[in-house]
Amino acid sequence: MNNTQAAELIEEATQWWSTEIIDMKPGVIRFRGFPIEQLIGAISFPQMIWLMLRGDMPSAAQASLLEAALVSAVDHGPQAPSIAISRMAVTCGLPLNGAMASAINVLDDIHGGAGEQCMEMYADIDRHMQEGNEIAQAVSAGLDAFIAARGKVISGFGHRFHPIDPRSPRLLGLVDEARAEGTVAGHFADIGRAVEAELERRKGRRIPMNIDGATAVIYSELGFSPALGRGLFILSRSVGILAHAWEQSQQGGRIKGPMPTGIPYKYTGIPARDYPRK
Amino acid sequence: MNNTQAAELIEEATQWWSTEIIDMKPGVIRFRGFPIEQLIGAISFPQMIWLMLRGDMPSAAQASLLEAALVSAVDHGPQAPSIAISRMAVTCGLPLNGAMASAINVLDDIHGGAGEQCMEMYADIDRHMQEGNEIAQAVSAGLDAFIAARGKVISGFGHRFHPIDPRSPRLLGLVDEARAEGTVAGHFADIGRAVEAELERRKGRRIPMNIDGATAVIYSELGFSPALGRGLFILSRSVGILAHAWEQSQQGGRIKGPMPTGIPYKYTGIPARDYPRK
Amino acid sequence: MNNTQAAELIEEATQWWSTEIIDMKPGVIRFRGFPIEQLIGAISFPQMIWLMLRGDMPSAAQASLLEAALVSAVDHGPQAPSIAISRMAVTCGLPLNGAMASAINVLDDIHGGAGEQCMEMYADIDRHMQEGNEIAQAVSAGLDAFIAARGKVISGFGHRFHPIDPRSPRLLGLVDEARAEGTVAGHFADIGRAVEAELERRKGRRIPMNIDGATAVIYSELGFSPALGRGLFILSRSVGILAHAWEQSQQGGRIKGPMPTGIPYKYTGIPARDYPRK
Amino acid sequence: MNNTQAAELIEEATQWWSTEIIDMKPGVIRFRGFPIEQLIGAISFPQMIWLMLRGDMPSAAQASLLEAALVSAVDHGPQAPSIAISRMAVTCGLPLNGAMASAINVLDDIHGGAGEQCMEMYADIDRHMQEGNEIAQAVSAGLDAFIAARGKVISGFGHRFHPIDPRSPRLLGLVDEARAEGTVAGHFADIGRAVEAELERRKGRRIPMNIDGATAVIYSELGFSPALGRGLFILSRSVGILAHAWEQSQQGGRIKGPMPTGIPYKYTGIPARDYPRK
Repeated sequence: MNNTQAAELIEEATQWWSTEIIDMKPGVIRFRGFPIEQLIGAISFPQMIWLMLRGDMPSAAQASLLEAALVSAVDHGPQAPSIAISRMAVTCGLPLNGAMASAINVLDDIHGGAGEQCMEMYADIDRHMQEGNEIAQAVSAGLDAFIAARGKVISGFGHRFHPIDPRSPRLLGLVDEARAEGTVAGHFADIGRAVEAELERRKGRRIPMNIDGATAVIYSELGFSPALGRGLFILSRSVGILAHAWEQSQQGGRIKGPMPTGIPYKYTGIPARDYPRK
Repeated sequence: MNNTQAAELIEEATQWWSTEIIDMKPGVIRFRGFPIEQLIGAISFPQMIWLMLRGDMPSAAQASLLEAALVSAVDHGPQAPSIAISRMAVTCGLPLNGAMASAINVLDDIHGGAGEQCMEMYADIDRHMQEGNEIAQAVSAGLDAFIAARGKVISGFGHRFHPIDPRSPRLLGLVDEARAEGTVAGHFADIGRAVEAELERRKGRRIPMNIDGATAVIYSELGFSPALGRGLFILSRSVGILAHAWEQSQQGGRIKGPMPTGIPYKYTGIPARDYPRK
Repeated sequence: MNNTQAAELIEEATQWWSTEIIDMKPGVIRFRGFPIEQLIGAISFPQMIWLMLRGDMPSAAQASLLEAALVSAVDHGPQAPSIAISRMAVTCGLPLNGAMASAINVLDDIHGGAGEQCMEMYADIDRHMQEGNEIAQAVSAGLDAFIAARGKVISGFGHRFHPIDPRSPRLLGLVDEARAEGTVAGHFADIGRAVEAELERRKGRRIPMNIDGATAVIYSELGFSPALGRGLFILSRSVGILAHAWEQSQQGGRIKGPMPTGIPYKYTGIPARDYPRK
Repeated sequence: MNNTQAAELIEEATQWWSTEIIDMKPGVIRFRGFPIEQLIGAISFPQMIWLMLRGDMPSAAQASLLEAALVSAVDHGPQAPSIAISRMAVTCGLPLNGAMASAINVLDDIHGGAGEQCMEMYADIDRHMQEGNEIAQAVSAGLDAFIAARGKVISGFGHRFHPIDPRSPRLLGLVDEARAEGTVAGHFADIGRAVEAELERRKGRRIPMNIDGATAVIYSELGFSPALGRGLFILSRSVGILAHAWEQSQQGGRIKGPMPTGIPYKYTGIPARDYPRK
């Protein structure tokens, strides 16, 4: 390799990790162009989240709506696998970062993807409307497509535990207020409610919007991509994951399995047998 | 097992996962006693973080100081291992939760523990002062103990990249304002500055307080345990980890290693040899 | 809850974690029925892997073929993201378990799923043959279906680095020997070679079978499910991930990013700007 | 940056990821100098593990002893946190790599470090003997030092479930055979048994050597570093973690928490209260 090739490779290497998010020089840190020392104390944590993810600065009203969604989804109790894993991890000796990692990892399609999937469905319905369909038709088509792709459990609607999820009406109420103030258009709130109505029509009983369906309305209203719906949920749920890891570390306990050891598991396999000696 | 024993086991099982954080019944979700629907839209995300971790509700002024610290530490660029791992993970096919998990996991003692370690040193110095020592003596004793336990790199002071970390003076300025308003006592700001002065006296040059030393002042002023200093840092840095994972997913790329493939690694082991045939 | 309901719940809880893999009583540990003390020293590690995953005990000849595949895929150097992550994690303070976790996590669809995807393609081709098609037609149909679903990069064939992957001919040679001895039928070796031939016919140049394509032949011959192809790859690659984590811990280094700090990254975002004061 | 500096940086970058483990050129893959195609089919998986971790090739007899230890520790049932986490992760939507990552991560000091800690104690006792002490004195001093550093639970001895761990006598028996054949010196088997005897003398009842104590004997006899005792345990337990993840994926289930939902958790925090309206 000659020196010219080396210079080209160095140039390629600097591009390898290129980013639009952060610029640093000795003594200088800028996020999306803004010096960090001008942001500290001036913007809220939700505004910083938005700036980092999207590059522009949200208004205070937009940030408040985002903040409400972030506040709403922090935790769903120790029976949630993510929370249980965080607590179990601490009893295995992990520090908070490790416990949070093992827990956040499981916020995957089934346990952490409902909001994202619901946003994709809302976006699909929105596309049908932009093509000239009435909302009822668009919702019906969107639901059919969702069911064909993912099955009968509609992400964002219904709850195995809560008949009415107390977070959803409150979040939708905030969207209505924001619509009245001109912060958001309210279009995805309409879509969400129309999905709820269509589900009731089809099933003959109410399948109410849950936390994932309601935060999906907010994130869609604010213009986030569906994939970031999952990302924002993770930022929110990380708070509960941390709180439970910390509480477990204060409670103590070593190598805590899922149930008290007095409750055994059931072996259902091949009965006892000898391994043949040679 | 008879039925009475079963009932005792069930009671034990309900205790197995006991928590003071969240109470749920069908249709009811309460955090530290408060119904979630009363918190949504009423409190900020940093207030929710505080409530989850500590059980009481911070004042708006306390929450603002916490918020400034959370805003300050979101990212340190793609050369930070945590950020690089998040981006590499995306190019391996991981969704955002998985990329964040692999990245958050490495915020361990060396890459994520400096703030916690600095809080422990501040707390140690504080104990020396409560025992009647002047701040200068307490700082000297605390530094000596830190160095004996952890070596010469003082967590929270000095930076391999920034001569002056632009975040630190801004954060300390906010602490001074909060002290003037009676929000915090300012005791740990005094300690932090005294550590900086003592380090300069010992080394003959300035080893300025960095982001970890400054957030450690804030978290200590607000009464957080040192271990939660690491936890709060993780919540903050998670924003950057998510933002970079998301940016990488938009950039594309498959199985991106640490450097362009044109730059090889160096093999320094046993020279080529044959494995003996039987 | 009365005592009868408690007994029913306990029964449900014992079922919650039911397994056919391991049975334990105080002083007794049986895997798939066999007492562990009869297996230790009597069976090989690959036989144990097979027993755990499938419930039956492979012959020595079957286990040897599995062993060859496990030996072949342990490592692909520090430029592989999984290996690089393992090494970076160690410099952040993680113990071996944490470094391995962050690394194994990224063996996802793109970085760890090629073998599984190739096995699915082989199985699809096999189904076409079972429906009465000649191998050439079956391969053509299977390739078309693969490309329609996953795009033009055919998992298991071609390599960005090795013109001929030295592991593949050796592994296929072992399959041929095992076929000659009656250990395997050789059906999937035929399929793999026919895919290679069809690819050459279509592209006009050789796209040779790589390590993933060759281990996919072996795992398919041995009757493993495609998903376990990924699992077996992870068991194999874990050895390299551990070895590199260990080597890095001996080399030392703190917070090692992806490149020497002398090589910067490139900022490509919004130019420097001030954040407006209120 | 001029071209000469670029060439120096490239040289530094190639050193950044230097390794003695693997050498690759197009068409060539060598581990510790040996071409991979000569190793495949010629050496066992445990021999490959040894070669990767240590650089030399073990004899067949050494590899057999290592193999027995690897076979012995694959699983300890679904009540073990690592296994439970692997299964829960699958029900959250994770693929096998992700489930294994979340699970392996928790094999930390408490859940995965006992073998390593026991090896460190054995090594400490060995140092006392090399300094001229009789084994009884060395063991007593080593135990005292262990207890002073880590508390009264002696890693490698005693079991909360098994009165006698059936794996330990079998593993020690294999060490005795290997000693008789000259494969190992048997020195650490003597130490392990002397620890057991001393514990019985101190406690007045037998605290038998468990699986961690027995594999620690084997790994110490074979000359592995204590830290690799943890690494080898992880390679072994990964088999069980994979097997349970796979079984769970076949059983199905969505978002399975630690216990059936009919068993609630207990809320022990602040009673219900309203959040004050402004």
